[in-house]
Amino acid sequence: MRTIIAVIGGQSNVSDEAKKLAREVGRLIAEHDAYLICGGMEGVMEAACRGAKEAGGTTIGVLPAGSKSDANPFVDIPIATGMGTARNVIIVRTADAIIAIDGSYGTLSEIAHALDQGKTVISLHSWPLQKVGVDKGLLIEASTPAQAVELAFTHGEKTA
Amino acid sequence: MRTIIAVIGGQSNVSDEAKKLAREVGRLIAEHDAYLICGGMEGVMEAACRGAKEAGGTTIGVLPAGSKSDANPFVDIPIATGMGTARNVIIVRTADAIIAIDGSYGTLSEIAHALDQGKTVISLHSWPLQKVGVDKGLLIEASTPAQAVELAFTHGEKTA
Amino acid sequence: MRTIIAVIGGQSNVSDEAKKLAREVGRLIAEHDAYLICGGMEGVMEAACRGAKEAGGTTIGVLPAGSKSDANPFVDIPIATGMGTARNVIIVRTADAIIAIDGSYGTLSEIAHALDQGKTVISLHSWPLQKVGVDKGLLIEASTPAQAVELAFTHGEKTA
Amino acid sequence: MRTIIAVIGGQSNVSDEAKKLAREVGRLIAEHDAYLICGGMEGVMEAACRGAKEAGGTTIGVLPAGSKSDANPFVDIPIATGMGTARNVIIVRTADAIIAIDGSYGTLSEIAHALDQGKTVISLHSWPLQKVGVDKGLLIEASTPAQAVELAFTHGEKTA
Repeated sequence: MRTIIAVIGGQSNVSDEAKKLAREVGRLIAEHDAYLICGGMEGVMEAACRGAKEAGGTTIGVLPAGSKSDANPFVDIPIATGMGTARNVIIVRTADAIIAIDGSYGTLSEIAHALDQGKTVISLHSWPLQKVGVDKGLLIEASTPAQAVELAFTHGEKTA
Repeated sequence: MRTIIAVIGGQSNVSDEAKKLAREVGRLIAEHDAYLICGGMEGVMEAACRGAKEAGGTTIGVLPAGSKSDANPFVDIPIATGMGTARNVIIVRTADAIIAIDGSYGTLSEIAHALDQGKTVISLHSWPLQKVGVDKGLLIEASTPAQAVELAFTHGEKTA
Repeated sequence: MRTIIAVIGGQSNVSDEAKKLAREVGRLIAEHDAYLICGGMEGVMEAACRGAKEAGGTTIGVLPAGSKSDANPFVDIPIATGMGTARNVIIVRTADAIIAIDGSYGTLSEIAHALDQGKTVISLHSWPLQKVGVDKGLLIEASTPAQAVELAFTHGEKTA
Repeated sequence: MRTIIAVIGGQSNVSDEAKKLAREVGRLIAEHDAYLICGGMEGVMEAACRGAKEAGGTTIGVLPAGSKSDANPFVDIPIATGMGTARNVIIVRTADAIIAIDGSYGTLSEIAHALDQGKTVISLHSWPLQKVGVDKGLLIEASTPAQAVELAFTHGEKTA
């Protein structure tokens, strides 16, 4: 079964820099021949899907809405949940590892659900949780997209 | 965006005849270049995924469990919901049309959710709801896999 | 722990007769000192809650929306799920027995989820599933509110 | 409609001190004539329910499991979701304000969902999120149960 990497992060008010990081992360996930899963909306999610598609990858968008039409144009496989932010749990459960880029409270909820399930989270300019005591090795900071994707693959297989 | 057809039906105590129908339906969905979505488990679901894979298609399994390891071996893209039978709603929301084969109460819940959302359901040796008054054209009986898939594509695009 | 009885049924286009039945069912549930659980919206749900409140009972409304403000005025305890019709599963899981009055496809989905979980459903002028082969004793037709509530209590404790 | 206050916090490895805080918080919520909602399990949840019951209050437990039998003995109204940790979202959506006591990643996910919905969270010896930049006034630290409950009532009504 192919590896599935989640990219989580902000939907609105996302900087161009964060989108650039996300697009590069998406591209690298596709080049590793893994599926990219995300929330299917705008911002970091759309940028990551775009990068993955540019590299010929396959993208999955787990949508909060009950209709597929909400998906960003770079989602291949939209999953319409109709469950609002409860869908965050599904993204995390399905992923082998999670890369967080930027992001606000929704992203923080996904990081928390991931850690609660014992899954590796790579923080790329996202929530610096180490400062508040997350030091079990499940949350790792990366400084570049290449490093983030590399860490996701090497650590993800141990905790998925 | 590619069409997504759901195949719903029994998980246990499924006859060889029903599995044969499901496998043929899966094969035809793949040949129409559509994605097949299902609950990802055994029985009708596994047979349909198997048929789709034999024809080079792509299969999505929306699992009740919180771990991907429950998926049948013919699922390409497992979605681990951890939400039990509430995941039935997700299958139906994501599909453009639904083909029901055999099946018990779980299948009936999916048919009901589909009709509630105004989506077309093709019954292939499944619940004969017309008898109890479902006559709005959303539930159509088919007698062969070829007819079921044809009806799913022609009617699905109108109600999805 | 107090018994919890679900009342399920139509939200819109509900006849005065069905509302009268629901109100009487709600009243009788309260007189049996049980909690009434429902979807918290209008129609059969509101009439049942109203009847329960008139008899001094306690009502729980499991809402599809993410905000409590959608609850009908006779709901004491609104549960805001934000999960749309996936909340139907929660109503059924929480109930010891289910009384269906009138209702369309949403109600049918709840009946199916209940039977899937092996729970007793009393049909009071609702879906006549016996005709299509549900004859395992889990679905029982009642002709009056008093009979429906009596059956819910006597059969519910065996299957809850 | 009565105010509903959520108490969130650890389920296992909870110190006696945290349980004592939770029990006192539960008692005060009941004395304010509000409903207490929580995840219905052990640890902080059970201690809070116990305190509320000792003061004659009403407790709601939104359970991850699909059966009511998992609820702690101080839950009056068990809601069986069968949705695992996705039920965290329901607790937060239903509450007017949230009091966090102790807790690990599951609790952090609830805090994040609450902030994402713009709801007030009172942290009583729980995650010190201010340090990582949550300073919009939605997350407030309290040092005693009395202060926590007071803050929940005064701030909750503005953001619920």
